[in-house]
Amino acid sequence: MLLEMTLRRIGSLDAGAMEKAQRRLDSLIKPPGSLGVLEEMAVRLAGITGDPKPQVRNKTVIVMAGDHGVVAEGVSVAPQQVTAQMLPAFVGGVAGIGVLARHAGARLVVVDVGVAVPVEFPGVLQRKVRAGTGNIAVGPAMSREEAVRALETGIEVAQEEIERGAGLLAVGDMGIGNTTPSSAILAAFGGYTAEEVAGRGTMVNDQVLKRKIGAIARALQVNRPDPQDALDVLSKVGGLEIAGLAGVILGAAAGRVPVLIDGFITTAAALVAYKLQPKTREFMIASHLSEEQGHRLMLEQLNLTPVIHMKMRLGEGTGAALTMHLVEAATRIIREMASFDEAGVSALEEDKILK
Amino acid sequence: MLLEMTLRRIGSLDAGAMEKAQRRLDSLIKPPGSLGVLEEMAVRLAGITGDPKPQVRNKTVIVMAGDHGVVAEGVSVAPQQVTAQMLPAFVGGVAGIGVLARHAGARLVVVDVGVAVPVEFPGVLQRKVRAGTGNIAVGPAMSREEAVRALETGIEVAQEEIERGAGLLAVGDMGIGNTTPSSAILAAFGGYTAEEVAGRGTMVNDQVLKRKIGAIARALQVNRPDPQDALDVLSKVGGLEIAGLAGVILGAAAGRVPVLIDGFITTAAALVAYKLQPKTREFMIASHLSEEQGHRLMLEQLNLTPVIHMKMRLGEGTGAALTMHLVEAATRIIREMASFDEAGVSALEEDKILK
Repeated sequence: MLLEMTLRRIGSLDAGAMEKAQRRLDSLIKPPGSLGVLEEMAVRLAGITGDPKPQVRNKTVIVMAGDHGVVAEGVSVAPQQVTAQMLPAFVGGVAGIGVLARHAGARLVVVDVGVAVPVEFPGVLQRKVRAGTGNIAVGPAMSREEAVRALETGIEVAQEEIERGAGLLAVGDMGIGNTTPSSAILAAFGGYTAEEVAGRGTMVNDQVLKRKIGAIARALQVNRPDPQDALDVLSKVGGLEIAGLAGVILGAAAGRVPVLIDGFITTAAALVAYKLQPKTREFMIASHLSEEQGHRLMLEQLNLTPVIHMKMRLGEGTGAALTMHLVEAATRIIREMASFDEAGVSALEEDKILK
Repeated sequence: MLLEMTLRRIGSLDAGAMEKAQRRLDSLIKPPGSLGVLEEMAVRLAGITGDPKPQVRNKTVIVMAGDHGVVAEGVSVAPQQVTAQMLPAFVGGVAGIGVLARHAGARLVVVDVGVAVPVEFPGVLQRKVRAGTGNIAVGPAMSREEAVRALETGIEVAQEEIERGAGLLAVGDMGIGNTTPSSAILAAFGGYTAEEVAGRGTMVNDQVLKRKIGAIARALQVNRPDPQDALDVLSKVGGLEIAGLAGVILGAAAGRVPVLIDGFITTAAALVAYKLQPKTREFMIASHLSEEQGHRLMLEQLNLTPVIHMKMRLGEGTGAALTMHLVEAATRIIREMASFDEAGVSALEEDKILK
């Protein structure tokens, strides 16, 4: 119900605000377009918010955590208990995303949507839909109803944050083993083989990579996810945090708040959100290009171009948090630069410019 | 004299500090190396500063301005007076770099090292070596002595800023027509043809691009710069702000302060600094990849990899200023993340990791 309502609420960008933003950008003391993607971002933010001089208020990173039954196949280098162990470090600000969210000046919201063990650490939002997924190499990750509940959990968390005033969201993930379901989602939607989508994740060796490819292949074989039905793909070969994050992205789009996508896992979530409602794409901003090999394929499916190339592969929202500074820069350019007229700078010679 | 002393003062990175930094990074609660270039930056900053837990204090952007006699060939879309007209907008904080330096929390220093007209605007450092270069398409840009004076001006400005406490420098340029000498510098050092190095700069049309290629080809033919003699290249086909910026980079390296390189023009300056003293390279941090086609070739010569891909081509130090946030992030990762032991997180399973 909330899911359907949310999908219907997602609208188009505000063309009038975008045109005004573009006109202002073209009047500023720089050659037209010379600030590249900063200008594109400013125009898109205008379209999302309806404000031709958009601002970024109350940056918020939402990290969703969940566990994965497929770790039974030996696909990960970290033991499953690490998912739960990391959450205090997130909340305490000493994990990668803790440090980078603080550096970005962003609020960090950590949500247990599917950790295998009880998480009673204060500061972690308790929204567990189920204690970890089933092993996708032998059966579905979760039921269709559970997938909807996880999606709606994400929508609710996004709505709560937007009500608190969040003006820019970023998504991050925590879940040992979650590159395997993310790869399976990419394979299911894109028609790729297990070999084409499986990467080394947390730098697994050849033996583990082989097991991972096997697990992805069996997940596709056993579950036969229907690429025309995003809920089918998500529930059969997805994950609880992936569903939650797809919900956050849908909630952001419905609330007309831009949302920064991070690496491989959150882009799998973005792909699910896009398949549920293609207009969602317009509210996404790509952040970094992950070292995980399938990330490029996912971004291609979404037609998104990442701006930071730092060979990162940690997840947690670290790349998305780093990009918040660049999104803010885009809004400051359009708000704070002077025009040729205002600054008394001579105009460019029109007859020499490439049109 | 100051130039020679500075070239001799530039040393090697501190291997001990780098090893300590690497060990700390490998103990933090993340898979080893998973923060990619952030980790590489942290290690390099340790090597530059000698501090295994480096910090970024007092960020400073230095913009050098100069004019170019080659504009007489009709190679630029903006009239020459724009160089001087932009300086009040820089100092007033309403040009691209004014906004982005403020966003970075950086001090902005604007230096007239070679503007064609008198610049008496308060806040602009008066260090003019000469009122614009000669037209490189018909003769040398400047004398060898003038090139040395411009280099030493840059060294002095860098020294002054380091004495004030600058812990991270970024370089930016202003000079109508300066993609033409920058292209000529690249061609001279790299053995490229004028066609291979000439880009559209401020989006010039085909006619202007043709004139630009002609001007670069004649500059190389008439001046015959000696690629084995960096001062010869700089004085014959360079520019005053390019020389000044090369000096800033040398001064930063001598003072053991990391320096962020910006786009096409400042990378030409970095190339000159590198040719004068190859060790300088270790103190440079690449920022963004410019849309100007020759930028990639320059970065290859320097073996530097840019981290921001935003199709920018404004110059002024805008890409370098944006990257300051990422450099700071690197230092915060190494200073603020907890280790596996400190956070009580289970170790990775060694037998599964790719070695």
